[in-house]
Amino acid sequence: MSVPVTAPATGADLTITDVRLTPILVADPPLLNAQGVHQPYTPRLIIEITTTDGITGLGETYGDTKYLELARPYAQKLIGRSVADLNGLFTVADEVAVAKERVDDQVDVGGLRGVQTADKLRLSVVSGFEVACLDALGKAQGLPVHALLGGKVRDTVEYSGYLFYKWGEHPKGIDSEQDDWGEALDPSGIVEQARTFRRRYGFRSFKLKGGVFEPGQEIAAIRALAEAFPGSPLRLDPNGAWSVDTSLQVIEALKDVLEYMEDPTLGTAAMAAVSARTDTPLATNMCVTTFDEIKEAFTRDAVQVVLSDHHYWGGLRNTRDLAAICRAFGVGVSMHSNTHLGISLAAMTHVAATVPNLHHACDSHYPWQSEDVLSERVAFRDGAVTVSDAPGLGVTLDRDKLDALHQRWLDDDGQMRERDDAAAMRVADPDWETPAFPRW
Amino acid sequence: MSVPVTAPATGADLTITDVRLTPILVADPPLLNAQGVHQPYTPRLIIEITTTDGITGLGETYGDTKYLELARPYAQKLIGRSVADLNGLFTVADEVAVAKERVDDQVDVGGLRGVQTADKLRLSVVSGFEVACLDALGKAQGLPVHALLGGKVRDTVEYSGYLFYKWGEHPKGIDSEQDDWGEALDPSGIVEQARTFRRRYGFRSFKLKGGVFEPGQEIAAIRALAEAFPGSPLRLDPNGAWSVDTSLQVIEALKDVLEYMEDPTLGTAAMAAVSARTDTPLATNMCVTTFDEIKEAFTRDAVQVVLSDHHYWGGLRNTRDLAAICRAFGVGVSMHSNTHLGISLAAMTHVAATVPNLHHACDSHYPWQSEDVLSERVAFRDGAVTVSDAPGLGVTLDRDKLDALHQRWLDDDGQMRERDDAAAMRVADPDWETPAFPRW
Repeated sequence: MSVPVTAPATGADLTITDVRLTPILVADPPLLNAQGVHQPYTPRLIIEITTTDGITGLGETYGDTKYLELARPYAQKLIGRSVADLNGLFTVADEVAVAKERVDDQVDVGGLRGVQTADKLRLSVVSGFEVACLDALGKAQGLPVHALLGGKVRDTVEYSGYLFYKWGEHPKGIDSEQDDWGEALDPSGIVEQARTFRRRYGFRSFKLKGGVFEPGQEIAAIRALAEAFPGSPLRLDPNGAWSVDTSLQVIEALKDVLEYMEDPTLGTAAMAAVSARTDTPLATNMCVTTFDEIKEAFTRDAVQVVLSDHHYWGGLRNTRDLAAICRAFGVGVSMHSNTHLGISLAAMTHVAATVPNLHHACDSHYPWQSEDVLSERVAFRDGAVTVSDAPGLGVTLDRDKLDALHQRWLDDDGQMRERDDAAAMRVADPDWETPAFPRW
Repeated sequence: MSVPVTAPATGADLTITDVRLTPILVADPPLLNAQGVHQPYTPRLIIEITTTDGITGLGETYGDTKYLELARPYAQKLIGRSVADLNGLFTVADEVAVAKERVDDQVDVGGLRGVQTADKLRLSVVSGFEVACLDALGKAQGLPVHALLGGKVRDTVEYSGYLFYKWGEHPKGIDSEQDDWGEALDPSGIVEQARTFRRRYGFRSFKLKGGVFEPGQEIAAIRALAEAFPGSPLRLDPNGAWSVDTSLQVIEALKDVLEYMEDPTLGTAAMAAVSARTDTPLATNMCVTTFDEIKEAFTRDAVQVVLSDHHYWGGLRNTRDLAAICRAFGVGVSMHSNTHLGISLAAMTHVAATVPNLHHACDSHYPWQSEDVLSERVAFRDGAVTVSDAPGLGVTLDRDKLDALHQRWLDDDGQMRERDDAAAMRVADPDWETPAFPRW
């Protein structure tokens, strides 16, 4: 619980003089979900913010074109501002136009975040810059990011083992990297994957990404996990693939072993209908994804745990705001994860360390990413990440690694620059169509 | 909107080496409210936190005995901790015992904050220390307090003229200071007081502390203000003195000129009953005074504006949390004030400058306080305080002034060390009893 009390001499000029944006493609295993399968490579954006004194802060966010198109003019507007002006990041964001074709009123099933709006896009961009500003500010002031957020209330942050149904390898004929996790397409494969997670990282709780097979098989997988890891907290997340009735049937079958059920069905109304008929807590990162969605969901008691994601909530300080709201309403809080690298894992760990009401292990895809842009990977020990007390995030960029992943982005013919799990599935199965929800 | 971008060299060791607590008595005019009248002197506690490097941070909070009894052991526990460990302030507070006789389940009508609980007492103490830590941290890092809260989003913070029915002087036979405001016991006296407020400070909106006379007279006072200051936002605050029906009658009589009606009636249920039958916004600093009270009030739409008070919400960062909750629920936010000095006014101004959804002028008693412990008083110009960009709060302690007010506390026979508006009223009227609520 000790916070370093010595801040080195800084004389820091906190003015932003340069912002460097580097889109990259990162290897991703063939992980299955309700929408399709992860592509061999996923786009991310690495942000470097430099101050007058040459201090550099690192940030990371989504790297699809729609984010890059916003990030470029946004970065220009930050030149000359202070890395300490974190509230101003939102004011500046309001000044950056979002192209109309990027906003629609259709459910964005790929991103699994509901209706795509200009505000959501902006927040997803701001978050990467906010983390970079906090990293630079912390380095300038000699304080770890958690101290800039008021100080850690725990020394380690627990994560869960994030289990996926997966193929042994990506489809033939498509450029890809080979992972060492093997295939997992049935309960015994999932248990084997969980054993590997525990052996490698020590995770004590497990989450299974569901919505891939008919519910009976996924019930069997959770049952097999409960038998193999008695007492371990377990979660199942079909990404809204089920009807209200199916959701209730699955919950009934698993209620004695579930820590919570995550997004069994789509939308606040359906979640509220499920919630009203079960005592098993419902978690979400789909029906509560913005501050605007909180009031209805909390007033209707539709969810009992919100899985925050600093990338799309707008940064680490907004994540703390969300946690404060959850605290006031007696709603639990933990963290969602999409494919990300070590910069984001470090950022998640810093903010998670400062949230008093974080009572569930956080999600992270990080173990699935064999590549990173850091000199040293962030390490899980006993299922947890130790909170860094070094100034800033406490991570170091490896420029050679960054350059190599950027070169892959440059060399790409455009197929991988937009994450599209349905398109990836069609490589293996040309007849694949994104299923209508509820699927079961 | 510019944040200073240069942080001076610090080399700061942020460890707390000393905490100095100085209870004082501050002159207070005979201001009337539903409970009685302000005493000639009111107790406040001045907090000085010193770091290893000799940097001192200033804080201020309530000074009654029950707060001093908590502040003393709490101060001891902070020695050796970092002024940056702001989240830890709450953890430490949980370790300090509150004497049972300080907690009861009666409505604490004197403090007007509902049921007195150990948590409320602790938060009211923590807030003074949090401000002192932020002041010290800002000085050490070369950053104004607003920058430690993410940066100001406005350069000035507007305050309202806080009008009171008042006597010309305190009762004979009791030691007191003479103020230069004169008597105000009817509509024309209130208008005259408002003219003085505008002339001296430029306030553009006015709040009248009501609940003193029968509603008809207070309606007449607001009508007289509306006539004298056409277009100025007006508010009336009877501190819960009215029944639901009376509240609705007063609102009906004033709805065309009220910015909002503040705490017309006591308790969330009664406020919700009023709210359901009027479009005039209801504000509160009585039925929503802690995070635990938010859920019921917001779910029932009992209030449309929450008047935060960093003293009892637990500090500036908790005030930002409250503002975030209000934002998510479409509830307005502004600031309540009890008798306070310039340290607290500076603190209020820093946090108010960082809250994007602050759409009403804040309350402040400060113009009523002729005494202060600062070398230079905080100034109102055109009804607003300019946000300081100096490191920390941007205020300087005058030790001679502090010593003089502390000597008054030492010399007091105990009569003034506990604020008790009913006891003060009994000096003038020995038969006075705290009225039963609703009074009308």
